[in-house]
Amino acid sequence: MGRITTRRRVSRVIVGQPTEAEREDVLAVEEPLEIRVAGAPFSITMRTPGHDFELATGFLVSEGVITARDDVQVIRYCSGVDDEGHNTYNVLDVALGPGVDPPSTDLARHVYTTSSCGVCGKASIDAVRTSSSHPVEADDVRVDATLLTMLPQRLRSGQDVFERTGGVHAAALFDGRTGELLVLREDVGRHNAVDKVVGWAVEQDTLPLTGTVLMVSGRASFELVQKASMAGIPVLAAVSAPSSLAVELAEETGLTVIGFLRGTSMVVYSRPDRVETQQ
Amino acid sequence: MGRITTRRRVSRVIVGQPTEAEREDVLAVEEPLEIRVAGAPFSITMRTPGHDFELATGFLVSEGVITARDDVQVIRYCSGVDDEGHNTYNVLDVALGPGVDPPSTDLARHVYTTSSCGVCGKASIDAVRTSSSHPVEADDVRVDATLLTMLPQRLRSGQDVFERTGGVHAAALFDGRTGELLVLREDVGRHNAVDKVVGWAVEQDTLPLTGTVLMVSGRASFELVQKASMAGIPVLAAVSAPSSLAVELAEETGLTVIGFLRGTSMVVYSRPDRVETQQ
Repeated sequence: MGRITTRRRVSRVIVGQPTEAEREDVLAVEEPLEIRVAGAPFSITMRTPGHDFELATGFLVSEGVITARDDVQVIRYCSGVDDEGHNTYNVLDVALGPGVDPPSTDLARHVYTTSSCGVCGKASIDAVRTSSSHPVEADDVRVDATLLTMLPQRLRSGQDVFERTGGVHAAALFDGRTGELLVLREDVGRHNAVDKVVGWAVEQDTLPLTGTVLMVSGRASFELVQKASMAGIPVLAAVSAPSSLAVELAEETGLTVIGFLRGTSMVVYSRPDRVETQQ
Repeated sequence: MGRITTRRRVSRVIVGQPTEAEREDVLAVEEPLEIRVAGAPFSITMRTPGHDFELATGFLVSEGVITARDDVQVIRYCSGVDDEGHNTYNVLDVALGPGVDPPSTDLARHVYTTSSCGVCGKASIDAVRTSSSHPVEADDVRVDATLLTMLPQRLRSGQDVFERTGGVHAAALFDGRTGELLVLREDVGRHNAVDKVVGWAVEQDTLPLTGTVLMVSGRASFELVQKASMAGIPVLAAVSAPSSLAVELAEETGLTVIGFLRGTSMVVYSRPDRVETQQ
């Protein structure tokens, strides 16, 4: 539990140089987490341990099961033990608040599944758009372009685990007006890092995340735009490229997607009116 | 179908420079694919269209449903249509060969789920180890370290979609003795790119992939080692870091994991005896 990195013996090979003796290296920990809702299995994800309750609540926001802190009554680690009798801290159970419907647990529960058009991007988009309780369309935040160019460095300097392992993704939430770092989470899974950020906001009871910028270390996929949209985050900025469906969903929901945020430049794929340039 | 990239109007912002007029940019396409087995929904993944049959067969190898080409009778796109009556080519159905058991379709079907120890890394590893039909432990391939250092460049130069979009992952299979590129696939999802490579091999009827090296553009997760292991690939090389569970699974199954393969150096995390240095 909370074991974020581990050490292992590795061999470093450099062509043309004598083989070094084995040495210790630091790796990012990856372990399965099973999320149960009211005792029923809901999801299993491979994640970096730590901030597991945030991961669970953030994931439930992304999936449209909860929309605020009061929708969760309590979260507990289950008593599952490994071969040696130790609790694995890899199974948790979420008890929902009164009046909150538990999620359907059939295989086709994914929000982007509809029978109407035999699975397509448009159906996936419609499913997210109609299920979000925190529309971002009307969010009138204006983010200064210069401020945006500072975020990758702020993200990077908060990446403790990456610094040690080179092996995790990061997601961070910034105040869109001041650039203040609100929270940063790292995980072997990109989607988990974002779920943890959203789960943190649930625990702070600050959903919807009006006026914020979510910055991610990699690319912007459909799934990440979905998560931002469900949490009411108006701006998603990524170091790398977005996918086609990520941009289509962003356009439909009125979310600003920024990609290739590097050095002094960026590409704005949707709702460029939120990016303020000086002249 | 097969639509791998698409064009969109974007705004490029450079701090301190006048805002450019909107221009066209190329994005990697992301669309859902539903894989059915004998008519029953089995999995939905967000993928880049193209090589969908390979994706399906490779995924079925990873999940332990099939082990050879004859285990698949036929694959067909379903007739699901979108709002305008066009086939979405986003649903396909796999008919299994005689005597091949269809997968269980309950939520807890993931190979790393066992009730025995409340979900833990060890159970996940045991599940893969016991279910693989193509053990790599005894594969006696020796790969020259100099040859290994050439693979990232060979991978990169085959990445057509990345070249145009900057937004996809890649996986490529190389002959471990000659370094010959056998197949390269790109996808918005890292696991999909690997499934497509394995699916290609199924169609070529060359499983197990004895003596090969699988090179991936990003990190090496548990899931990627699982996929390599299930296909009988003895060496997995990654540009970035592996996770703890990836290395543990590799050690248990006898697979060589190489990370940080950059320039003339690399880190070998497991089974270093397969990496040959000149002195």
